[in-house]
Amino acid sequence: MAGDDAATPPTAEMPSASLNPSPERRRRECIASIVGRGAVSDELIGKRIRVGGWVKTGREQGKGAFAFLELNDGSCLSNLQVIVNASVFPLAQLVHTGTSVLVEGELKKPPEGVKQRVELHADRVLEDGPADPSSYPIPKTRLTLEFLRDIVHLRPRTNTISAIARIRDELAYATHTFFRENGFRYVHTPIITTSDCEGAGEMFQVTTLFSDAEKLEKDLKNNPSPSESEIEDAKLLVKKNGEDVAHLKSLKARKEEISASVLKLNKAKESLAKLEERFNLKPGIPQKDGKIDYSRDFFGRQAFLTVSGQLQVETHACAVGNVYTFGPTFRAEHSHTSRHLAEFWMIEPEIAFADLEDDMYYAEEYVKFLCRWLLDHCIEDMEFMVKNYDKSAIDRLKLVSSEPFKRISYTEAVELLCSVTDKKFENKVEWGVDLASEHERYLTEVIFKRPVIVYNYPKEIKAFYMRLNDDKKTVAAMDVLVPKVGELIGGSQREERYDALVERITSAGLPLEPYHWYLVLRKFGTVKHCGFGLGFERMIMFATGIDNIRDVIPFPSVS
Amino acid sequence: MAGDDAATPPTAEMPSASLNPSPERRRRECIASIVGRGAVSDELIGKRIRVGGWVKTGREQGKGAFAFLELNDGSCLSNLQVIVNASVFPLAQLVHTGTSVLVEGELKKPPEGVKQRVELHADRVLEDGPADPSSYPIPKTRLTLEFLRDIVHLRPRTNTISAIARIRDELAYATHTFFRENGFRYVHTPIITTSDCEGAGEMFQVTTLFSDAEKLEKDLKNNPSPSESEIEDAKLLVKKNGEDVAHLKSLKARKEEISASVLKLNKAKESLAKLEERFNLKPGIPQKDGKIDYSRDFFGRQAFLTVSGQLQVETHACAVGNVYTFGPTFRAEHSHTSRHLAEFWMIEPEIAFADLEDDMYYAEEYVKFLCRWLLDHCIEDMEFMVKNYDKSAIDRLKLVSSEPFKRISYTEAVELLCSVTDKKFENKVEWGVDLASEHERYLTEVIFKRPVIVYNYPKEIKAFYMRLNDDKKTVAAMDVLVPKVGELIGGSQREERYDALVERITSAGLPLEPYHWYLVLRKFGTVKHCGFGLGFERMIMFATGIDNIRDVIPFPSVS
Repeated sequence: MAGDDAATPPTAEMPSASLNPSPERRRRECIASIVGRGAVSDELIGKRIRVGGWVKTGREQGKGAFAFLELNDGSCLSNLQVIVNASVFPLAQLVHTGTSVLVEGELKKPPEGVKQRVELHADRVLEDGPADPSSYPIPKTRLTLEFLRDIVHLRPRTNTISAIARIRDELAYATHTFFRENGFRYVHTPIITTSDCEGAGEMFQVTTLFSDAEKLEKDLKNNPSPSESEIEDAKLLVKKNGEDVAHLKSLKARKEEISASVLKLNKAKESLAKLEERFNLKPGIPQKDGKIDYSRDFFGRQAFLTVSGQLQVETHACAVGNVYTFGPTFRAEHSHTSRHLAEFWMIEPEIAFADLEDDMYYAEEYVKFLCRWLLDHCIEDMEFMVKNYDKSAIDRLKLVSSEPFKRISYTEAVELLCSVTDKKFENKVEWGVDLASEHERYLTEVIFKRPVIVYNYPKEIKAFYMRLNDDKKTVAAMDVLVPKVGELIGGSQREERYDALVERITSAGLPLEPYHWYLVLRKFGTVKHCGFGLGFERMIMFATGIDNIRDVIPFPSVS
Repeated sequence: MAGDDAATPPTAEMPSASLNPSPERRRRECIASIVGRGAVSDELIGKRIRVGGWVKTGREQGKGAFAFLELNDGSCLSNLQVIVNASVFPLAQLVHTGTSVLVEGELKKPPEGVKQRVELHADRVLEDGPADPSSYPIPKTRLTLEFLRDIVHLRPRTNTISAIARIRDELAYATHTFFRENGFRYVHTPIITTSDCEGAGEMFQVTTLFSDAEKLEKDLKNNPSPSESEIEDAKLLVKKNGEDVAHLKSLKARKEEISASVLKLNKAKESLAKLEERFNLKPGIPQKDGKIDYSRDFFGRQAFLTVSGQLQVETHACAVGNVYTFGPTFRAEHSHTSRHLAEFWMIEPEIAFADLEDDMYYAEEYVKFLCRWLLDHCIEDMEFMVKNYDKSAIDRLKLVSSEPFKRISYTEAVELLCSVTDKKFENKVEWGVDLASEHERYLTEVIFKRPVIVYNYPKEIKAFYMRLNDDKKTVAAMDVLVPKVGELIGGSQREERYDALVERITSAGLPLEPYHWYLVLRKFGTVKHCGFGLGFERMIMFATGIDNIRDVIPFPSVS
């Protein structure tokens, strides 16, 4: 590494004054501010700047007199062309793909006829980090997304994954901005939960029983349980000390003498209790009545990773009005499809004093806002996606952000699908069954050619907390369907009537006790409210056209 | 509940046209937009508006001719005074604390001499949700924070908890805004991790072994394992079918005949394999060589909940420059103090091409930004905190947002603390020991009376990934200390030199294998980089003066 004064780390010997921030301290420019979104920032031309990044491609020219480096720092898709003279730095150390450099120099317009609109003439190389071309895992050649999944720690250095990272970041900020502008408050719902709302089978359990058992095993090895005879001895000592106390009392001995003997007795009792406690320690997972004794687990009962923050966030909607969550959720499903992860992120708004119509309104506005945001803030990355992954990605964003969403009832949707003659569906459609992805996509892609909201589903195929409609057959649920992915959002008006909710929980075969607090919200000052959930990764797949969910999350789950 | 056309949920019978959003649809105003931050929005006076909320206090007046309701909707601390005539609605149903109402009417200026600056004359009550005063858990009387911890689902309806919720939301948005303005990208680091960076003892384990064992037990009950004789019979069948094949072959029988017998043999083999698999199924947690067989767990090995996203987010800093995480982290510590939770939220920025000085710069700017944000956006809630919980809360925000942070080395800090004569510390100070909270608070509250950054700590008391200074005794670590809470931020420059990092991992007694990917970042295009972590709840405690961490997180952990 090439050292330099400005880059030397502070040491204990340095006077602290040198560590105060100074406005003159030169910071690096990010490449996005120079050539981001394809436009050159003219005001920087002719200026001295400092830039850091990784060499995408490099080559020596003019018989080794200078080198061209295509430098990228991940702030945007575009590279900055850097020219370094051989007198400045050993060029052979700079030109390999993957090398990091921090350079300083003047930003210039290149001669006419050159592709680049700007180039940096570096006269200082402040730092460099080599990358051995014989072993660097990301050579210049194009790599498959599948290959990159095995080097998750390096893949953000590729054009595709860094573009997705920027799109993901923009969608996250757009989410917070949309809800803030609409008066929603962000609420962190719990990740570890003891209420199992959707059936334990699909949930991950959170425990310290294994590590506790391991600790105990080690402990017992170093300090074995007492033997039965040790316990017997301790019991005898208690008995004897007890007799001593009684004896002294019967003799009406001095207070101090009695106190001393009582103290001795208590110590013996304590020591017996400790021995008995250790005697009863069993190695392994604690059991009780042939079952695992979760009262000895960290939380005193079984605990799981959340599958949704909805029920909990309702507590805040029913207190501070409009709220939303944005956090990780978990499913322990062993389905290794391209659309499922054990760990993924969800956005779940919840709206007070609002019904299904409001729900659909906000869902539509939110999706439109996200699409417009990408068109406004990410066009360079979106064009990359169009060129390399999905020709219609930008058209899709434009369509969704401009066309009003079509709204049809489930009943109408089923009728429409039943009358389709030009396509044979794999799954049968009839009133009462859930729509399959092929039906959803047919509705949005073929019949209406724009996003569709289907509402009022049969109650049998939807969750207990959805509000029963007056027809008693359907619930006030809605799904937003979009081209490419089908269902993007699922939502509903919540059952706010206490008796109706009790009835729904009971007829779903669920126990009432875990929902006690949820019912309490309906008992005191209940309000009509609704909400929906958007899978964040699903949204990124929709926007980018990337087909595998493992490529749109920074760290696909460890399995 | 009082129904009304606009509030009727859509049903399957309704024509879908009625569900398209109409601009005339009247939405409710939030109370913050009417009386938020203590200021009345004049342009609404004289207008018809719709407002929903919960009655804080209500009373009938004029011998039951009308009622005054103090209505709060959680959008701000202030209530809106609502006047309802007896002719509009049965008043006795409206006046109890906790009742929800959605009302419509004209916003008017009250007569001179009245405390309120505005009041709503409601002529319609569109919805109401009663709250039985004999059982409503949050009466008008002031309740302790401790009491409220037992009714987490209702406590956001109180002034204190809703004020904290708003402050928390503002700090979250301020966080995203600060980092965005400074060119940082938001990265979601994994929650479930198989790398145990800080010792398994403190981590929660994530597993499906218990539920898998339960399923297996049920399965074996319904469909018991085969007996040994069943296995023997199946083996005999395989043997016999094998002999048949051999026999037919030796007879040079017709191809079809041989194929049929091979098919039979294969079926017998398959059926034997299935029986043997079931025969080997053991109920309970799977074991291998006397230990739990984690290869049968969901991820094929042990998995834990993350304690920090730092190591993972470094992969993105070393690719897309400046990044940050904001997510939940977990510690399975059984310390039931007022400052620790099993589940809490952390913000961890990571900065490329940057050293410890940059780290301190961003940490200071970030904390100042958060403090200024609260002064600019939350003054009504902050004044409530000053009045009810911490007289100096606003002064503290002003101090921290305006005064430059003092920077001193650890060595200087220890010298200063050793020379203190007017205070006796409970913990001894000498070079080489970590500073206790009492020392940190003394430095910031007494000696410097402003935030202090202590940097360059002895390497022995800091983590392996912190960059070794040239003195070989200290590492480039820094802590930001603030009045009231002591350490608010911990950060460091990371060891970017491959050999130095290997040496640090090894001498910390850690295995190299789990850090393979982390070392790879140093092998190819390594860059100087640094980062820090801020506990989000700690920041809220600092800002509000609330002493117990359970009161500043919406859902304190289930234990």
